[in-house]
Amino acid sequence: MEAGAEAVGTAREVAAQADVVFGMVSDPDAALAIAGGPDGVAAGLTSGKGYVDVSTVDAATARAVEALVAASGAAYLEAPVSGSKGPAENGQLIFLCGGDEALFKSIKDSALDVMGKASFFLGACGRGAQMKLVVNMVMGTWMASLSEGMHLADAAGLDAATLTEVLGLGAMACPMIALKAPIMATADGTSPYPAAFPLKHQQKDLRLALALGDETSRSMPVAAAAMQQYVRASARGRGEEDFAAVHEAGRE
Amino acid sequence: MEAGAEAVGTAREVAAQADVVFGMVSDPDAALAIAGGPDGVAAGLTSGKGYVDVSTVDAATARAVEALVAASGAAYLEAPVSGSKGPAENGQLIFLCGGDEALFKSIKDSALDVMGKASFFLGACGRGAQMKLVVNMVMGTWMASLSEGMHLADAAGLDAATLTEVLGLGAMACPMIALKAPIMATADGTSPYPAAFPLKHQQKDLRLALALGDETSRSMPVAAAAMQQYVRASARGRGEEDFAAVHEAGRE
Amino acid sequence: MEAGAEAVGTAREVAAQADVVFGMVSDPDAALAIAGGPDGVAAGLTSGKGYVDVSTVDAATARAVEALVAASGAAYLEAPVSGSKGPAENGQLIFLCGGDEALFKSIKDSALDVMGKASFFLGACGRGAQMKLVVNMVMGTWMASLSEGMHLADAAGLDAATLTEVLGLGAMACPMIALKAPIMATADGTSPYPAAFPLKHQQKDLRLALALGDETSRSMPVAAAAMQQYVRASARGRGEEDFAAVHEAGRE
Amino acid sequence: MEAGAEAVGTAREVAAQADVVFGMVSDPDAALAIAGGPDGVAAGLTSGKGYVDVSTVDAATARAVEALVAASGAAYLEAPVSGSKGPAENGQLIFLCGGDEALFKSIKDSALDVMGKASFFLGACGRGAQMKLVVNMVMGTWMASLSEGMHLADAAGLDAATLTEVLGLGAMACPMIALKAPIMATADGTSPYPAAFPLKHQQKDLRLALALGDETSRSMPVAAAAMQQYVRASARGRGEEDFAAVHEAGRE
Repeated sequence: MEAGAEAVGTAREVAAQADVVFGMVSDPDAALAIAGGPDGVAAGLTSGKGYVDVSTVDAATARAVEALVAASGAAYLEAPVSGSKGPAENGQLIFLCGGDEALFKSIKDSALDVMGKASFFLGACGRGAQMKLVVNMVMGTWMASLSEGMHLADAAGLDAATLTEVLGLGAMACPMIALKAPIMATADGTSPYPAAFPLKHQQKDLRLALALGDETSRSMPVAAAAMQQYVRASARGRGEEDFAAVHEAGRE
Repeated sequence: MEAGAEAVGTAREVAAQADVVFGMVSDPDAALAIAGGPDGVAAGLTSGKGYVDVSTVDAATARAVEALVAASGAAYLEAPVSGSKGPAENGQLIFLCGGDEALFKSIKDSALDVMGKASFFLGACGRGAQMKLVVNMVMGTWMASLSEGMHLADAAGLDAATLTEVLGLGAMACPMIALKAPIMATADGTSPYPAAFPLKHQQKDLRLALALGDETSRSMPVAAAAMQQYVRASARGRGEEDFAAVHEAGRE
Repeated sequence: MEAGAEAVGTAREVAAQADVVFGMVSDPDAALAIAGGPDGVAAGLTSGKGYVDVSTVDAATARAVEALVAASGAAYLEAPVSGSKGPAENGQLIFLCGGDEALFKSIKDSALDVMGKASFFLGACGRGAQMKLVVNMVMGTWMASLSEGMHLADAAGLDAATLTEVLGLGAMACPMIALKAPIMATADGTSPYPAAFPLKHQQKDLRLALALGDETSRSMPVAAAAMQQYVRASARGRGEEDFAAVHEAGRE
Repeated sequence: MEAGAEAVGTAREVAAQADVVFGMVSDPDAALAIAGGPDGVAAGLTSGKGYVDVSTVDAATARAVEALVAASGAAYLEAPVSGSKGPAENGQLIFLCGGDEALFKSIKDSALDVMGKASFFLGACGRGAQMKLVVNMVMGTWMASLSEGMHLADAAGLDAATLTEVLGLGAMACPMIALKAPIMATADGTSPYPAAFPLKHQQKDLRLALALGDETSRSMPVAAAAMQQYVRASARGRGEEDFAAVHEAGRE
């Protein structure tokens, strides 16, 4: 077989022809659908092959896909990515992996580190999804807090651009402030926030992280307060916009 | 008069001999004490001189000092610094100034930008204090949120050092994570957190920021939730330790 | 057949012999199990009969049971009760009903109002469960708030019994204060809170109510804060005790 | 002197003619103003007389008035009332007293229990103000929580009047629900809430209670979340309306 892409009919056929198959779909249902069924990936896998799913799914879905793959004798690796639109375009994604460590090692240099800037093996399948959840919980809360700071600065008559510049010189200087604060500063209450990471997905990640805290008995009052700001922003019709639109929750 | 430091008896005498006097004391009461009274700075000031107070005080105190200085005919600049112990030692402080703009311009290059890495003129006296308050409110909330993420990671069996590394590669990568997360990760519930910025001061800044939001009708539920975690950490005897000790509020 | 109880072998046999069957089990899984399957209630139902489930289940489970019953041609009424151990023993329960209104009317006087002090028909199946959720969300939040008041009174040196007496004379005077405040006032941090309504069930109801708010875009920051206090109390091993044990979440 | 009221010129003159003087003014400044100064109550007091201030003031003001009175040799009793407009008109007020216990005893039967339905002696001056603060903190939080329940019920399609009736039959049945829920249920987002207890005063009491918790190291996350809802209602222009207008904070 020559190098190059080849059109095939089903996920099963792809799996039958390749040593390692990569899957990337938009949500848990699609991840299960492409892995299972008569024409799914698992139907084409055999012992010695590997399936790597870089979709962002919850830990339970990752483990369900793992079970489907395991039945075929093949190896499975969950490899959700941290990073949104911009990082994806610039090869700045981070892979958060769980599952079969040998498979991880075999593709780390040749695939993961080519598509992204770093990859981590975190242990059993499900750990990748959970790491992403923790990261996104903190991110969603920081964003809601940044928004409160910007609203307070506004109330005190302080210039938003100067606040952004001051923040950018201190202990909190980070890409998120550089990217999002200018968008929030110029929002006027009716303008949209073009989605890099949709607010409804940020809300979902906070929801799942809080559920994980509930299950593991970790109280997280700050994240819980942030979550309610995302609910409020959703109530104001901002669910499809960027998660920076949580800024609208603080506008009266 | 030769170059070099000279021992003098009182703040008044310093003010009488210099064109521009810099004051740095530990709290609002000391700021008022050194500026007022028969031996205070204001007593030695005259028209044409300037007083720059780089202490961290609230807006009301800054304006009270301004009034004392104004009575002497001299110019006043509040110039609180953003940044703690480390930045101070490395010339990485940021001056957040309010008050007399001419005085600001006259000392920006020769003094402020020598001692720190940036300086901002924000408008009327009080604005410097308020900018610092906004910055510290966000910082205190981010820290409390980071702590929740680390506790949740721990509950999920995820390694704290890996979480720190992942955070350090993404949208939230910032000096605060690099400096504080390793300290929090190794804390065992009994070890102290050496103070760079004491928790009780962080708690005070959240208190004042929430009061400012209350006055200006800006609801800030995320900061309010964070504040209660600092109260809890104080209840556990961590007020004199670093503000990263808010991590102890999440330990049961 | 003579009046009186009769031993029968299965739920199906009960349903086959009675016009209206009442079910009361401890959780959603049991509610489904007793209704479905070859020996379940539905298997013994026919058109003209009715099934009333007074178990406390979520709206989705209530609708699933309704579907099982509907397939038999019989009528279904969800009738979860509001009220815990004490009210149950004293005939003070309240039935919150949803589903078949004709069935509700036919048993209101003869059965529901005999076992309880009031019964409400709220509309489609699922409404009963949701009303109970709303009521319990408020109850759980009020309890967490009462606890904060008692801790604050203690901090200020105010006597808990006097606070309870004052509250009992004002706008908030209610059975919950009369019943629970004395138990909280005498708790010493190690004593148990005998369960009338277990804390883990209160926590579950807050969880489900917050999920309902999330789905319907209603932000509920106060309930969200209360929820985290129940998580904390659970982390302290109080899940099986009475929900008044949320008081332990505020003890350092 | 005959029985009956007599017109006199100043507070000092009243104090000079009476054995026990009662003061009732609208706020702390007025309480200090009527007690002090050349024509104030204290100027007319002498040893053996008593001054009872039934105004609602903070603990610090109560102690300042106590000091003014103490200088005259007379006895002082703070006696703030719990209860708003309705209870005042119906003799249903509760007096929460602190200060001179002998004075309390001498007027309890003849005055306090005639004007109100109960009176409590709580210890040193300031305790009365603090008890009122604790009571009002719980009340403000319960109201914010009740509002969340009503909004959630609305989202689920449940009737507000039925919710009110159900709540009125259970563990939370209290005058506050009976009085306020119907007003909240019929509010349409533009209608005013006639003030029995103004929202801005409720907000002030939550502010002071949270400050007391801050000072005494008691974390109160539920009250802190409720406070932010009052800030939000104020931002929406509801400060002068009844505190039930916190219901507007949950309307999008």
